[in-house]
Amino acid sequence: MKNVVLGIFDSGIGGLTVAREIERRIPGVSYVYFGDTARLPYGTKTASTVVNYAIQNSKFLKAKGATMPIIACNTASAAILKTKGANKKISLIFKNSKTFNVIEPAVEAAKEATKNKKIGVLATPTTVNSRIYERLLPGYKVVSVPAPLLVPLIEAGWEYRPETKSILREYVNPLKKAGVDTVILGCTHYPFIAKLVRDMMGDKVKIINPAVQTAEKIELFVRQQKAKPQGVLTTRNYLNKLNKYPHRRFYVSDLPKGFSKQAARFMGHPIKARLI
Amino acid sequence: MKNVVLGIFDSGIGGLTVAREIERRIPGVSYVYFGDTARLPYGTKTASTVVNYAIQNSKFLKAKGATMPIIACNTASAAILKTKGANKKISLIFKNSKTFNVIEPAVEAAKEATKNKKIGVLATPTTVNSRIYERLLPGYKVVSVPAPLLVPLIEAGWEYRPETKSILREYVNPLKKAGVDTVILGCTHYPFIAKLVRDMMGDKVKIINPAVQTAEKIELFVRQQKAKPQGVLTTRNYLNKLNKYPHRRFYVSDLPKGFSKQAARFMGHPIKARLI
Repeated sequence: MKNVVLGIFDSGIGGLTVAREIERRIPGVSYVYFGDTARLPYGTKTASTVVNYAIQNSKFLKAKGATMPIIACNTASAAILKTKGANKKISLIFKNSKTFNVIEPAVEAAKEATKNKKIGVLATPTTVNSRIYERLLPGYKVVSVPAPLLVPLIEAGWEYRPETKSILREYVNPLKKAGVDTVILGCTHYPFIAKLVRDMMGDKVKIINPAVQTAEKIELFVRQQKAKPQGVLTTRNYLNKLNKYPHRRFYVSDLPKGFSKQAARFMGHPIKARLI
Repeated sequence: MKNVVLGIFDSGIGGLTVAREIERRIPGVSYVYFGDTARLPYGTKTASTVVNYAIQNSKFLKAKGATMPIIACNTASAAILKTKGANKKISLIFKNSKTFNVIEPAVEAAKEATKNKKIGVLATPTTVNSRIYERLLPGYKVVSVPAPLLVPLIEAGWEYRPETKSILREYVNPLKKAGVDTVILGCTHYPFIAKLVRDMMGDKVKIINPAVQTAEKIELFVRQQKAKPQGVLTTRNYLNKLNKYPHRRFYVSDLPKGFSKQAARFMGHPIKARLI
């Protein structure tokens, strides 16, 4: 684990919400990012198709030097978690590496946050159909709402338009009616509209951002790994040292220019995405 | 040309608007339809990606028995028309067959319809970026508006929702301001919302539906071909005879159930799409 290079993938820009949290928490870590913009969105496609895409993406990231996969897409995470052997396959591509998905950390956080045991989930149709949140939250009332239009709206840059608000209201209404006290943003694109969801649900409802929860888990894991082989170096020192040499590369399967522009605005530093 | 089997493809359900017009006009013709639902939408992807998809789709349709390709998708038609050698490649896959796209017939109809020589085009970003309508309409003022959200809205079944109306109004406004007297629906999905466009543009503006124009051309061609080798049979007789044995098959790259349901409602007869 001397040279951890994270291999982060998503269908498009959604995984950047995870990458940004990772940069904030582990400034020294290197990563390769892949946005599968030629085949997006994933959330309206079947689990077996998405698992195939995830395996192809993993092989690509491994070939580009990544050592540990971060499945920064809820649709892909759900498809992998519910498909027997899929997570193992991806782990093997990275020589038996630990894998991270964005669903399990969010579920853990939701369990801690809820008081009335009623948890709402906004997600893509494929994620909702997987019923993965219901399976991981036995004993809780889970209200899942499929929201197929949010990814296209966010990818089109319509986050702040009134139509997006109006469409979102329709998706959020069943959660309000059900009286959930916690809402999982079940798609890594949704943190782009987290404020809207917060405003609609009100102050008393806790909003779980999978990007934050996942980055926390990765930070913990990387720190533990780093601390060991370094002997006298403290974790903090090691991370400070790492900080000087992080390299980040961005690849997309289509439209590198548009992606670079959107990504730079979001990440707060210039990004040049390359076409695979 | 004894056994014409049309090979119709689109990214999803959009090409059905063409298939439906073909059924109406040439009830006797057989066809194979392919909806590339695993990779939709095409309209936000680059031309070279879409040309690759079109070539793969053509090979698939040929393998399934199609003899003549119908590119029932404006994004793919535009990408093929502007890419040197692409149309020839597709023709060769079908043993040098004539190819049909949905752009040229619509352009011809628009030329006939316009009086003030101001033509509006609603299309996907990829089609607009191709500038194919401008190139095919020299001497006309062409106002093209990219409408990236219409395909996701239509695929989500939101044709009749107020948000779709509101989003469409934003796309239509520049056409009204420019004073066009003719609007090309530059995407085979858009006939699903033709009525909305018509209502917004008013009675005096002519709306060109590429599905209707393309089916007309295909009908003409098939009738001419059929009339020749039959000798004593009149075209009408031949078509009536053909009518008894047409076979239509539908394939999709993902989500066959959802496609079959939407397609059956739209085509007015049961459809069972198979997964490739």
